[in-house]
Amino acid sequence: MQADLVEEIAVSLEATLAQLQSPSTVDVLQVQQAIVRAAHQFMFERGLVQLMPLMLSPITDPLNHGVVDAAISYAGSRWSLTKSMIFHKQLALLNPALEALYIVSPNVRLEFADRAFTGRHLFEFTQIDFEFRNKDGAFVRSFMEDLINYVFAAVKRDVPEVVAKYRPQSLPEFGKLDVYRTEELEAQYGPDFEHLKSREATAPFWLLNHRREFYDKEDPAQPGTYLNYDLIWPEGFGEGLSGAERENEYHQILKRMGETGADKEAFQHYLQVAKQQGLPYSAGAGFGVERMARFICRIKDINDVTPFSRRPGMPALF
Amino acid sequence: MQADLVEEIAVSLEATLAQLQSPSTVDVLQVQQAIVRAAHQFMFERGLVQLMPLMLSPITDPLNHGVVDAAISYAGSRWSLTKSMIFHKQLALLNPALEALYIVSPNVRLEFADRAFTGRHLFEFTQIDFEFRNKDGAFVRSFMEDLINYVFAAVKRDVPEVVAKYRPQSLPEFGKLDVYRTEELEAQYGPDFEHLKSREATAPFWLLNHRREFYDKEDPAQPGTYLNYDLIWPEGFGEGLSGAERENEYHQILKRMGETGADKEAFQHYLQVAKQQGLPYSAGAGFGVERMARFICRIKDINDVTPFSRRPGMPALF
Repeated sequence: MQADLVEEIAVSLEATLAQLQSPSTVDVLQVQQAIVRAAHQFMFERGLVQLMPLMLSPITDPLNHGVVDAAISYAGSRWSLTKSMIFHKQLALLNPALEALYIVSPNVRLEFADRAFTGRHLFEFTQIDFEFRNKDGAFVRSFMEDLINYVFAAVKRDVPEVVAKYRPQSLPEFGKLDVYRTEELEAQYGPDFEHLKSREATAPFWLLNHRREFYDKEDPAQPGTYLNYDLIWPEGFGEGLSGAERENEYHQILKRMGETGADKEAFQHYLQVAKQQGLPYSAGAGFGVERMARFICRIKDINDVTPFSRRPGMPALF
Repeated sequence: MQADLVEEIAVSLEATLAQLQSPSTVDVLQVQQAIVRAAHQFMFERGLVQLMPLMLSPITDPLNHGVVDAAISYAGSRWSLTKSMIFHKQLALLNPALEALYIVSPNVRLEFADRAFTGRHLFEFTQIDFEFRNKDGAFVRSFMEDLINYVFAAVKRDVPEVVAKYRPQSLPEFGKLDVYRTEELEAQYGPDFEHLKSREATAPFWLLNHRREFYDKEDPAQPGTYLNYDLIWPEGFGEGLSGAERENEYHQILKRMGETGADKEAFQHYLQVAKQQGLPYSAGAGFGVERMARFICRIKDINDVTPFSRRPGMPALF
C-alpha cells in the first residue's frame, strides 16, 4: 500500500473515531429521539396508521435532481433502494380501511460529491412521511404546523438541558406560518430566493408551487403551476419538508410523466393500477428527522448530527 | 409479450391488489404500530438513546446462513445493505456519553427461495435492536421480559378490539421466562428441537448457546459454547429475538473470524479499532416487529402482515 494511502486511511480512522466519540453528537441524538417519539405519539392521536418502511422496490421516487442510481438484482428482478416512500403511500391508501398513514423510513439518495459540504445533505437519512386520503394541501399544512408545535414542546420536555445549551432563548411556539409562492419570491429575491428568504426569516414558512416530480398535482385552475409545498426552516437552515396533492388520474399522470421524462416502462404496473383501479385522491408530505434536529440544535453541518459520516460522494469506514 | 407471461403478471396484479386492500392487514398494522410506539416509550423510560438506522455500510452482519449478497457501488466504495446493525451498535458504544442505545431499522436479508413459504421469513423486515455497555446476557434477558410485558399491555390498551378478534382470551402477562440450552433440548427432542419445543410451549422461552456469528461471545468458562440467547415464541411461532454478549477482544475476534470463515479484509477497520482502541464489553439483542405482530395476531403466514409482498426469492410488483 502506498504511504499516502495508508496515511489517508489512518486520518480517516482518526476522524471516524473522533466523530463516533463526540459528546455533542449524543445531545443531537437525544433531540432526534424526542422528535421521533413525539411524532409517533402525534400520529397515533390523530388516527394515522403506521406502515413499516421498505428499502427495496421495483419502483421508487425518481426525484427531480441527479443522484447515482442505487439498485440490486434479486429473484429475477431489479430492485431500487428507497429514495422516498411516495408510491407506496399512494398504493397503500387503496385499502378502504386506511384513511391516513405514516412511515418512518430511511431514504437512500446517492447525491453527487458537489453536495458533500452543503451542510444539508446526507446520502442516507430518515424521513417521516405521511399521506391523507381525500384531503388537500391546506389540510396537510395545518396538520404539519400542529405537528411542529407538538414535537417542539416534547423536545423541551424531554431534553430541557440540551435545548438550553443550543437554543438559550428556547424553542418558540409558532402560530399559522406565512405562505409564499416561488414565482413571487423569485421576482423579489432572484434565483437564490429560497436560501435568501430562509436566512432572513425568523419562523418557518411555506413555499408553494415547485416544478418537479410527476406525482405532484398540477393545478387544474392554473396549468403549469403545481399544488405542492415545502416547509423552509428559518435562520438559513433551508428546506425541511416537501409535500403535495398528488396526481391520481391516469391520463394526467401519463402527461406529467412525458413532461418530466419519467420511465413509463419501469412504472407499468403503477400505471396499470391507475388505469384499472384508479389511485386515491390524496395529499401528504415528508420531513427529514436529521434536518429538524439540525435546526433545533443550530448545527452548521448535518454530518455532525450522526455518529457515522454519510457525506455525499465520500467514502466512510463504517 | 407471451400470453402466459401476460396472464402471470395479471394474476400478480390481482394478488397484489387483494393484499393491498385486505382489511385484516390493517388490523395487524395497528398492532405493529402499538408495538413500535410502546417500544420507543419503554426505551426512553429506561434511558436508552436512539440511533437512526443506516442502510448502507462497508460492513454488515455476515449472518450464519446463506443469503444473496446485496451491495452497491458509490463514491469509489462497496456498500452492503444492512442485514443487522450489530457492528454499528458496538462502535457507537465507544462514545463515553452512551451507556445504552437502540435502533429501529429495516433489515434486508435476501434469503433463498426455499424460505418463501416458511411463514416466518420476509426478505426485508423491521428489527428493534438494542445494546448495553457493561451488562451481561442475564440483564438483557430480564430487560426483554419487561419490554414484552410493557408492549403487550400497550397493545391491549391501544387496540383492544383487534386483540379481542385475534386473541379472544387476551394477551397474557408473563413472569420470568423459562431458560433452556440448545444441547439439552436437542438431546430431548432431536434436531428439530426448536420447532418442536415452540409448538409445545404456551409461553415464550429462552434458548441459550447457539454456534453462529463470530461476534457472539464464546463462554471463557466453557470454550465451544456461547453466551448468546434467542427468545422463542410459543404456539409454534418460533424464533423472535436473537442476542448475545459480544466478543470485544482483538485476539478472540480474530480467532472466531477464523472459525466462522469471516472475511478479515472486509473487516480490516473494525479489527483496527478493536486492536488500537478496544471495543466495549457489551450485550444486546434484536427482535423482529413483524414476527411479534404475527405472534400477537396468530397470523400463519408473515407475508400477510405487510401490504406489500416480500416473500424470499419471489418478485413483487411494488
